[in-house]
Amino acid sequence: MQKNNRQFILRQRPEGIPTTDDVVLEESPMPEPGEGEILVRNHYFSLDPAIRGWMDDTPSYLPPIALGDPVRSTTLGTVVASRHPSFAEGDHVTGLMGWSEYSCAPGDYAGKIPVQSEFPPHYFLNILGAVGMTAYFGILDAADPAPGKTLLMSAAAGAVGSVGGQIAKSRGCRVVGLAGSDEKCAWICSELGFDTAINYRTCGPLTQAIADACPEGVDIFFDNVGGETLDAALLNLNSGARIVFCGSISTYNSPNPVPGPYNWWQVLARSVTIQGFLVSNYVERFPEGIEGMSALLRSGEVKFREDIVDGFENTLSAFHKLFDGSNQGKLILRLDHELD
Amino acid sequence: MQKNNRQFILRQRPEGIPTTDDVVLEESPMPEPGEGEILVRNHYFSLDPAIRGWMDDTPSYLPPIALGDPVRSTTLGTVVASRHPSFAEGDHVTGLMGWSEYSCAPGDYAGKIPVQSEFPPHYFLNILGAVGMTAYFGILDAADPAPGKTLLMSAAAGAVGSVGGQIAKSRGCRVVGLAGSDEKCAWICSELGFDTAINYRTCGPLTQAIADACPEGVDIFFDNVGGETLDAALLNLNSGARIVFCGSISTYNSPNPVPGPYNWWQVLARSVTIQGFLVSNYVERFPEGIEGMSALLRSGEVKFREDIVDGFENTLSAFHKLFDGSNQGKLILRLDHELD
Repeated sequence: MQKNNRQFILRQRPEGIPTTDDVVLEESPMPEPGEGEILVRNHYFSLDPAIRGWMDDTPSYLPPIALGDPVRSTTLGTVVASRHPSFAEGDHVTGLMGWSEYSCAPGDYAGKIPVQSEFPPHYFLNILGAVGMTAYFGILDAADPAPGKTLLMSAAAGAVGSVGGQIAKSRGCRVVGLAGSDEKCAWICSELGFDTAINYRTCGPLTQAIADACPEGVDIFFDNVGGETLDAALLNLNSGARIVFCGSISTYNSPNPVPGPYNWWQVLARSVTIQGFLVSNYVERFPEGIEGMSALLRSGEVKFREDIVDGFENTLSAFHKLFDGSNQGKLILRLDHELD
Repeated sequence: MQKNNRQFILRQRPEGIPTTDDVVLEESPMPEPGEGEILVRNHYFSLDPAIRGWMDDTPSYLPPIALGDPVRSTTLGTVVASRHPSFAEGDHVTGLMGWSEYSCAPGDYAGKIPVQSEFPPHYFLNILGAVGMTAYFGILDAADPAPGKTLLMSAAAGAVGSVGGQIAKSRGCRVVGLAGSDEKCAWICSELGFDTAINYRTCGPLTQAIADACPEGVDIFFDNVGGETLDAALLNLNSGARIVFCGSISTYNSPNPVPGPYNWWQVLARSVTIQGFLVSNYVERFPEGIEGMSALLRSGEVKFREDIVDGFENTLSAFHKLFDGSNQGKLILRLDHELD
């Protein structure tokens, strides 16, 4: 075992996109697991927009990442030492660890994934992990999809949006996607089966573009973006429509407090139901979700794309791809090829 | 019958509180009902915050009041001429008419109320009308009250809030009210049975005051106010809490677009469900609601206060009471005493 560990440490709270002054690659001694803890050698990091929120010192569903701690991230790794009765050396685990080569954490923070499966291990960091489960329960439990309903998906080429849209299609919805390039729009329509897509960068006024793409109005808005996108969607909702509030990536890097939608009144005027969605409320139902998602993968009803960046040193620069539009599909950092 | 009618006409869109330049008292010829229409002599106007919204030229659940039209208002009156098969001279009706001595409108806009009832006719403009039904269905259908839950009510001394809070009490909730004077706070606690009340004008930072009054957090926020009140409530919600978005009186007179809550993110972080509430979706269930509310009135579980201003000429100045805090209980304009 090597003597030192390397970690991306949060040294100061970012304003906007996190820089190498905010998040610093540092060496530290290899940790020793205490009672109830496990030491994990990480093979993959899941790079998700939510991580940006955890870097801020504002109240949220998890405490902020403490200054001096490694950046929190879902990881996939191998147990190399265990002082927890449920884990043994060689187990494959996912959990909320950090941007570290080795993570030492309470075993209760981690979950075992099958060493043998019809799917590669890193699927459990993605389509069969929190990201896939967000799409699965976000659509099937929170969005109330049904044949004939029009569902509008923001960040439709993103990891959650691209999968969620396909699940809504499988339930008979008409699905319209918002994405930031013609290539992404073409992908979600021709490869994933979205009914139509709007390139929000080139479509002109977004409210009108949504109206044109949704001539019968929007029954379900699944929102990963917030801000102006949410405001435009609100003006196209049918009475009794539903919003699943799953994320707000357009606002995560703002240095100033960002208010809620300017068209807030439409929530009352159109009798809208908004559901704030957190996948952590569904952890106990993950086995059901993994089974359901596996079936959708086998049947070909759900396809997905991965954007895998190699090399631990590249973690922070890879993370930036989430915010500059260059990322397509689930963004993953691969530390090594051991589980390929 | 007199030769002329008098009406408060919307001549220009107000910025802020409507003035006598915006809403002008004018004489006009007595209208003649056309086919399917009725002519109503109004005895009472219901003065509601929603009327202010209808004066703006922004998209909402009803079209804006057209410039040159009388100000739209729920009224209670007597049919003096009918060309609609369902109405006869002498019928008592309520409906969306206007600030006019006489209103001429399609019969379909009006509903008959009993000429004989255990309650005075003007109750049907108030506790047994749209206002009471807003409290009734807003609590029982949208808020999901249950024993042990803490319900926070904004504008708790208002027409909807004061009644809604009592209905929540009748279902076992702990009910905390926000109101704008010590007298109002004393009234809702000692007369109406609220568990405690916060005078938002004198309590200091509202977020902390709510936290102090709700040591176990807020499970249901019934909001009639919006703005800073909503922002403070959001920081006190329990995970899985529910907001009934019933009104936003703090923003109705703003000359500029008012954004949604700055703490919008908490909707996701606390897995909040927001329900935009419009009583017009419940019109078909009004008979059930009138029956239920009548029972609550007979049992004494619901009490209410009326603020009746006399004199047609005083309609606009009476309306101002809704926005300066001087109103307590349901605000009604009485044109004459014919139905007293």
